[in-house]
Amino acid sequence: MEHELREVIKKSDLAIKQEDFETLMNYYTDDAILVVKPGTIARGKEEIKKAFIAIAKYFNNSIVPTQGEMLLLEAGDTVLVISQTMLAADKKDSEFSMERRATYVFKKQNGQWLCAIDNSYGTDLLNK
Amino acid sequence: MEHELREVIKKSDLAIKQEDFETLMNYYTDDAILVVKPGTIARGKEEIKKAFIAIAKYFNNSIVPTQGEMLLLEAGDTVLVISQTMLAADKKDSEFSMERRATYVFKKQNGQWLCAIDNSYGTDLLNK
Repeated sequence: MEHELREVIKKSDLAIKQEDFETLMNYYTDDAILVVKPGTIARGKEEIKKAFIAIAKYFNNSIVPTQGEMLLLEAGDTVLVISQTMLAADKKDSEFSMERRATYVFKKQNGQWLCAIDNSYGTDLLNK
Repeated sequence: MEHELREVIKKSDLAIKQEDFETLMNYYTDDAILVVKPGTIARGKEEIKKAFIAIAKYFNNSIVPTQGEMLLLEAGDTVLVISQTMLAADKKDSEFSMERRATYVFKKQNGQWLCAIDNSYGTDLLNK
């Protein structure tokens, strides 16, 4: 059986594509963090939502994230997701890297998998 | 102030060097997992302890782990550690990589930081 978390990640990617950030926020914990770029972290749903709106705007509202190979390392109610994340957009001269090896930490709360730490830069944050 | 988690990681590294695996297990959650090598996962303290004993033996009981640059991504009671991890040992012909960009997930339980997911291979698990 496919892990139910993969479905959550698919729904999150769809919400980003559709710029439905209200729905997207349902997949984050209240105290979640998002690494916007190396050195810049958004904390909590309000900041994360603002960051996604700014990122969407930066990419001319054309961003489409997809996941390639994905590994789930599960320990009880906590999962570390290691994933090849591709960002497609019509903006070419990007300061953002469009293919990443991401790390996401999800926690199960009240029966639902929620993202607590969203770090699409993975270990590339080192030596930045 | 230095994050108290750095002290826990230092103590864990010291316990590995001293092969004090009883003490080392105090720094893991009951349902923790350890990525022994790509495709091989130890689950729970018993398996993790056995894996560390086997790794120590493989390295002729000479292993010394140290951490280089380390980043802590903290969201409430959960931290994703991104760390440059070096393994020194007197064994040269190793099938293990000796310098890694590791990912560790720690959780705070009863006031103590415990490792839930120990993946020293980081995103290098992809495409293996």
